[in-house]
Amino acid sequence: MPDHLSNTFSALADPTRRAILARLAAGEASVTELAEPFAMSLPAVSKHLKVLERAGLITRGREAQWRPCKLDAAPLQNAAQWIEQYSRFWEQSLDRLEEYLNKIQAQATTKIPTPNKENPDASGSK
Amino acid sequence: MPDHLSNTFSALADPTRRAILARLAAGEASVTELAEPFAMSLPAVSKHLKVLERAGLITRGREAQWRPCKLDAAPLQNAAQWIEQYSRFWEQSLDRLEEYLNKIQAQATTKIPTPNKENPDASGSK
Repeated sequence: MPDHLSNTFSALADPTRRAILARLAAGEASVTELAEPFAMSLPAVSKHLKVLERAGLITRGREAQWRPCKLDAAPLQNAAQWIEQYSRFWEQSLDRLEEYLNKIQAQATTKIPTPNKENPDASGSK
Repeated sequence: MPDHLSNTFSALADPTRRAILARLAAGEASVTELAEPFAMSLPAVSKHLKVLERAGLITRGREAQWRPCKLDAAPLQNAAQWIEQYSRFWEQSLDRLEEYLNKIQAQATTKIPTPNKENPDASGSK
């Protein structure tokens, strides 16, 4: 059974491949155009493109000379759906952080009372 | 510079590691408990846990005997945010699919008109 999710995550586990996808988000590009910003050889870029193509993240045009690469986001949607199952965990973490910050803020307010001239009793100096 | 996103995606690019995360989503577990459903040796599971730990996806308890593993979803949130940049692409694809389905449905309705007894002119048999 081909494991599409593993192929997708594996393809994304490289900064050059993620940069190639970011470039293709702006529109189709040839291998030469994709190689330019990376100071990489064409074979090195082609190797990355093969990984992306195998993962279904890009498609290539059919003409032999000009085979533009095009982003295909469908596997990204599956990857996003898989990760989203865990969103309640990071939302919980944020809730707990907020709770903690409120608590230490409340403690700080209790320890360092604002001087209150209208009610000298509140200063604790009595 | 450590490449956190690559570490996260690389850790997720394995079905056993994703299954371990799914198990930990239900609560903390020891290595022995994690190994049970996989019919894997403890060293093999430990190796996967090391990858997950290095990626920051799990934390381990400190006691030597019972070192429960715990899910840490923070790296997943970063991964989700990276992928979400591309959501407009899969939404566009869905829009285009809907457009296409509407179009072929409209064509089908035109080609096979419903017989209309109250208005025989509409049947086209005149």
